[in-house]
Amino acid sequence: MRLVYRISTALVALVLIAAPALAVEKVRWKMAMSWSSTLTPFATAPIELAKIIEEMSGGDFTIRVEGAEKHKAALGILDMTKGGQYEMGHSASYYWKGKDITTVFFCTVPFGMNADEQNAWFYKGGGMELMQKTYDKFDVLSFPGGNTGVQMGGWFQKEIKGLDDLKGLKMRIPGLAGEVFAKLGVNVTNIAPGELYTSLDRGTIDALEWVGPAMDIKMGFHKIAPFYYTGWHEPATELQFLINKKAYDKLPKEYQAMLVTAMKAVTADLFIDNFAGSADAWEQMKTEFPNIQVKTFPKEVMQAMKTASDELYDEYAAKDASFKEVLDSQRAYTKKARAWTNISEYNYIKTLEELAD
Amino acid sequence: MRLVYRISTALVALVLIAAPALAVEKVRWKMAMSWSSTLTPFATAPIELAKIIEEMSGGDFTIRVEGAEKHKAALGILDMTKGGQYEMGHSASYYWKGKDITTVFFCTVPFGMNADEQNAWFYKGGGMELMQKTYDKFDVLSFPGGNTGVQMGGWFQKEIKGLDDLKGLKMRIPGLAGEVFAKLGVNVTNIAPGELYTSLDRGTIDALEWVGPAMDIKMGFHKIAPFYYTGWHEPATELQFLINKKAYDKLPKEYQAMLVTAMKAVTADLFIDNFAGSADAWEQMKTEFPNIQVKTFPKEVMQAMKTASDELYDEYAAKDASFKEVLDSQRAYTKKARAWTNISEYNYIKTLEELAD
Repeated sequence: MRLVYRISTALVALVLIAAPALAVEKVRWKMAMSWSSTLTPFATAPIELAKIIEEMSGGDFTIRVEGAEKHKAALGILDMTKGGQYEMGHSASYYWKGKDITTVFFCTVPFGMNADEQNAWFYKGGGMELMQKTYDKFDVLSFPGGNTGVQMGGWFQKEIKGLDDLKGLKMRIPGLAGEVFAKLGVNVTNIAPGELYTSLDRGTIDALEWVGPAMDIKMGFHKIAPFYYTGWHEPATELQFLINKKAYDKLPKEYQAMLVTAMKAVTADLFIDNFAGSADAWEQMKTEFPNIQVKTFPKEVMQAMKTASDELYDEYAAKDASFKEVLDSQRAYTKKARAWTNISEYNYIKTLEELAD
Repeated sequence: MRLVYRISTALVALVLIAAPALAVEKVRWKMAMSWSSTLTPFATAPIELAKIIEEMSGGDFTIRVEGAEKHKAALGILDMTKGGQYEMGHSASYYWKGKDITTVFFCTVPFGMNADEQNAWFYKGGGMELMQKTYDKFDVLSFPGGNTGVQMGGWFQKEIKGLDDLKGLKMRIPGLAGEVFAKLGVNVTNIAPGELYTSLDRGTIDALEWVGPAMDIKMGFHKIAPFYYTGWHEPATELQFLINKKAYDKLPKEYQAMLVTAMKAVTADLFIDNFAGSADAWEQMKTEFPNIQVKTFPKEVMQAMKTASDELYDEYAAKDASFKEVLDSQRAYTKKARAWTNISEYNYIKTLEELAD
């Protein structure tokens, strides 16, 4: 009896050991964000990702999410993920422009695709492969991390009636859009987010861009600047999940699948959160500050910005074969996808606007 | 030594027995679709869902997906899910219009929200709660199942230059849009999908609507009808996952989380698949049949259709309090969300179109 009991106990143990890795392997990861833990909806997606992963794995796979208030390295996410201090990061690809200019295409570029077109390019137009090729040199995996949709062109103290009004204008606008504006005579500056409101209020700058109503409303710009310009410079800002490749490879296959699935789910959520938040915030701004005027830059200005953008892309492409490869891919895909956008999503809203006239 | 070994073996066994339910509970589900297994991209989403669930659960939770070619009950999905023959279904909410008219709002309605706006309404505007309230009476859970975006208005043999051209026109167009067209004098018919091509080719009908380029191209309508009209009647057709409530409640929490997460992921995929597929197919159609003309109904026709739609909604609302509740919710949300769409996504494409002129 004793022998039989001992053998059967050993067998039970063996059977359970042979069960899927899922139940027995505890994995504890950390993820660093470029934003503070309270910057919604950006921080919402990674925090929700961690919650979902914990639920799906029954608590066996957990990810501790740390905001910039903790690690103090908002722009160090790529290095920290590569180095393994964090297994994951949540950031934006265009922050790595200084390391590799090609990274800008996996976030957004002036006059680029909208979110629908860019998603189609990522998943059906070769974008995911081009992104991974770019990030292979950093030993990290890169995934879409949530899109803001079209960002607003920014808050201006004075109306821009033509190209002359841009000359000498002091504006906070980072990245490629800043380079485009600089070509047109704008005095482009960078200012820490915490100082933006005061700088605009005191006239240190004449204009600035941030994101869109959902996030701008918390900064208060609508209280001090009367002109809110429509967007051209960040038509589909895609945030980014970074994963340390070795850490990913060590995960059980079940956890890899959970991670990829949860990233896709919270990425969709972020677009929805930001869209709904912007609809709410825009209604509130208009109601509380009825004098806000929404403006679109005049055609002369738009055309000059478009020409300057194209020149900028061609300059970078002449110096960098990788940049050229992705630029060519995006230009070709945009042409095809825009033809469809024009007769579907765009035409529908246009028809309704014309009826409302 | 022997005793120590025996105790430690028993302990290992106990620890493993105490591990999460995940590894030991095998769940086998079946899902019925309204479409055949080869109707991409509609069937792609549920098939991908099953694949992801199997991967995440290490094979412990599997879902066998069956197309209409197997169960022969394309429009029986709600009944079969309610009855428990299938734990899940993949269909479209407007198919249940005959059981409860309110269900149409959880798919799409003429002149309704676009996909971005509707997603925001579902998740941030009370839509999910209203949908579940509607489906509680059927003892099933309902979730978004993937959106086609704006569907095309259909293929026409003759150009529609005004309201007179609609009188007596024989057209295949189902649902509320058919009721709207009927109000304008169209002779609305329903014809099985397999007979559509021949009916249009032989003149049994003068026009028909299907989905959009990605799916229309396989039907071949572009080879026999020269006018391709832009959409108004299905601006954001959301497919639907149905789940038997008792089956869902019996699932371990881990599997519930997997299911909800995977549904959201494949729902995002379906929009991308259909968008990219339409961009590809539209390019191909235009190249192979350069005489296809894309047309938008004249303003006179659009205005009459809009008025007829609003009348139809008000008629149903007067008879049905649930219908009125959801109609009021959608009308209010559309107003708020459209104000944001207009200055962001819509304005961006408009600006670029004006530059291209």
